[in-house]
Amino acid sequence: MQKNNAKQVQLSHGGGGKEMNRLIKEIFFNAFDNPILRSEEDAAVLHFDGNLAFTTDSFTVAPLFFAGGDIGKLSIAGTVNDLAMMGAEPQYLSCSFIIEEGFAIESLKTIVSSMASELKKSSARIVCGDTKVVPKGCADGVFINTSGVGRILNSGISVKNLQLGDKIIVSRDVGRHGAAILMARESLALESELTSDCATLWPIVEQLIAANIDIHAMRDATRGGLSAVLNEWASASEVGIEVIEDAVPVCDAVKGLCELYGFEPFDLANEGTFILAVPDASVEATLEIMQRFCHCEQSAVIGQVTDTRQGKVVLQTPCGSQRYLDVPQGELLPRIC
Amino acid sequence: MQKNNAKQVQLSHGGGGKEMNRLIKEIFFNAFDNPILRSEEDAAVLHFDGNLAFTTDSFTVAPLFFAGGDIGKLSIAGTVNDLAMMGAEPQYLSCSFIIEEGFAIESLKTIVSSMASELKKSSARIVCGDTKVVPKGCADGVFINTSGVGRILNSGISVKNLQLGDKIIVSRDVGRHGAAILMARESLALESELTSDCATLWPIVEQLIAANIDIHAMRDATRGGLSAVLNEWASASEVGIEVIEDAVPVCDAVKGLCELYGFEPFDLANEGTFILAVPDASVEATLEIMQRFCHCEQSAVIGQVTDTRQGKVVLQTPCGSQRYLDVPQGELLPRIC
Repeated sequence: MQKNNAKQVQLSHGGGGKEMNRLIKEIFFNAFDNPILRSEEDAAVLHFDGNLAFTTDSFTVAPLFFAGGDIGKLSIAGTVNDLAMMGAEPQYLSCSFIIEEGFAIESLKTIVSSMASELKKSSARIVCGDTKVVPKGCADGVFINTSGVGRILNSGISVKNLQLGDKIIVSRDVGRHGAAILMARESLALESELTSDCATLWPIVEQLIAANIDIHAMRDATRGGLSAVLNEWASASEVGIEVIEDAVPVCDAVKGLCELYGFEPFDLANEGTFILAVPDASVEATLEIMQRFCHCEQSAVIGQVTDTRQGKVVLQTPCGSQRYLDVPQGELLPRIC
Repeated sequence: MQKNNAKQVQLSHGGGGKEMNRLIKEIFFNAFDNPILRSEEDAAVLHFDGNLAFTTDSFTVAPLFFAGGDIGKLSIAGTVNDLAMMGAEPQYLSCSFIIEEGFAIESLKTIVSSMASELKKSSARIVCGDTKVVPKGCADGVFINTSGVGRILNSGISVKNLQLGDKIIVSRDVGRHGAAILMARESLALESELTSDCATLWPIVEQLIAANIDIHAMRDATRGGLSAVLNEWASASEVGIEVIEDAVPVCDAVKGLCELYGFEPFDLANEGTFILAVPDASVEATLEIMQRFCHCEQSAVIGQVTDTRQGKVVLQTPCGSQRYLDVPQGELLPRIC
């Protein structure tokens, strides 16, 4: 009994007493160690001069482990990417765990070690945290919230800044994360080469900023996929967006799963795929930089900003017709991220 | 069926599409409205020159509604207090909801409205957020994470800054929040006058800072209560702390519940009660300011910093004996905050 208990998270690990202190020191401090975290104050003390970006995300993905990542990797990449998409250098993250009683300590360690690895892809550090444990049945495994702050290096990027003639670029093939989760959930072994695109995007964004690319808008296509981002842009910038359906890269495995389950690849969530709007003159330089990164080898222009059908996204289909690409609605996939 | 659905949170409310946009606009934006939140970017843009504090907290309290507060009030007061305890003005908060499918929209509105009311007690504003919906049975009602940033006005406050001769002051009677949750969970009607101490502490702290009180350490006594804070201080500052048991205010209702359930009032969580260490010369001015606030009328000196028994907290009992006040251990009350 005692032995078993030592391998699972107990309610006492969230009680604010000795057991919680031990869990935090042995698992979290060990993995995330840095001088700010070690200060033991109620809040981290940071220094900023200028504009910073501040963002938050809670992660409830099921299953916790999937092809190409896990909830730990996702929780770091997700918040780092939100900062990067604002042209901000990801610097400081908080991390807050809600853990179900009985959760395996080994799995918790694996998740935390994933977080630590993913943190190395940018200069982001975890500087404060919180741990709650809820009784068995009151949560499903582990939920993680990460919030983040970082200084803004490029302040021109905005959802409202799309301009007539801008070209729309996607960084890689779309729909992988959604399809990978679907595959994991349905235990489909067939599509074994399909992995989530889950990745930290800061290294690419850093290069784009360093090269002074005139980025008008930039967004990672998470829940709601490409469709949600393009519609948000068209609406916020009061422009039309025209997309060439055939120009959007989609891998065969994602196409196959979408046909099988009746999903639209453009609606599926991504976790390491982003979309840019840049003026025509910047397209070549943008693609040249992006294609240096192996997961962006397929980056491509997929459309442009127009002055017709303000607020709408129009898809040019391969058969020559046009249709609106709408904001996704309905249930899609729950617990995708 | 359709009518029922409209009254409950659906999985589609977390899908990243139309339904989520509507929920966010109608419920969250309406209640928390401010120009930064309305910007629609992936992250809030803030400006800072100097030192800021950054903190995070997830709230999983059960029941969601209790005497003296609810999870909404708690989620604002908790994070605002973490900033205040660092001598930082609470300015910007994130808020992230994990909602169980089927949760009543009316209850969600009540919680959000509680949050909006509590935000008015300081100048803190919610500037970014996130919403996840998990299938029925994968969470229990609602969990809320709030993270916060604020500029530091008094940078001398630290867990490592207790000095020999400092007096320890508690702001009010202890143990109320823990006792109120216990009462709500056990449906005890007897102790009907007992309410949680849940409150935003910034207005008091602001006055203490404005009066240039030389605060050495300050901490709200949340999980683990008075015992956890004093032990953390003794250990981090490498001093001894002596507490006069009889000097610590505890109301009769809390005493009664503790006797009934075998709890120690000093171990019980508080959510609007804080502890200060100030030099002897500042005690009078500190108490004079604190007692202007009705919930701090009972604020009192409860002990002092000594150079004996480094790292330990010693309780002087009413019968003249001494015992260690240790860090709480074991299960205490799960889902207290």
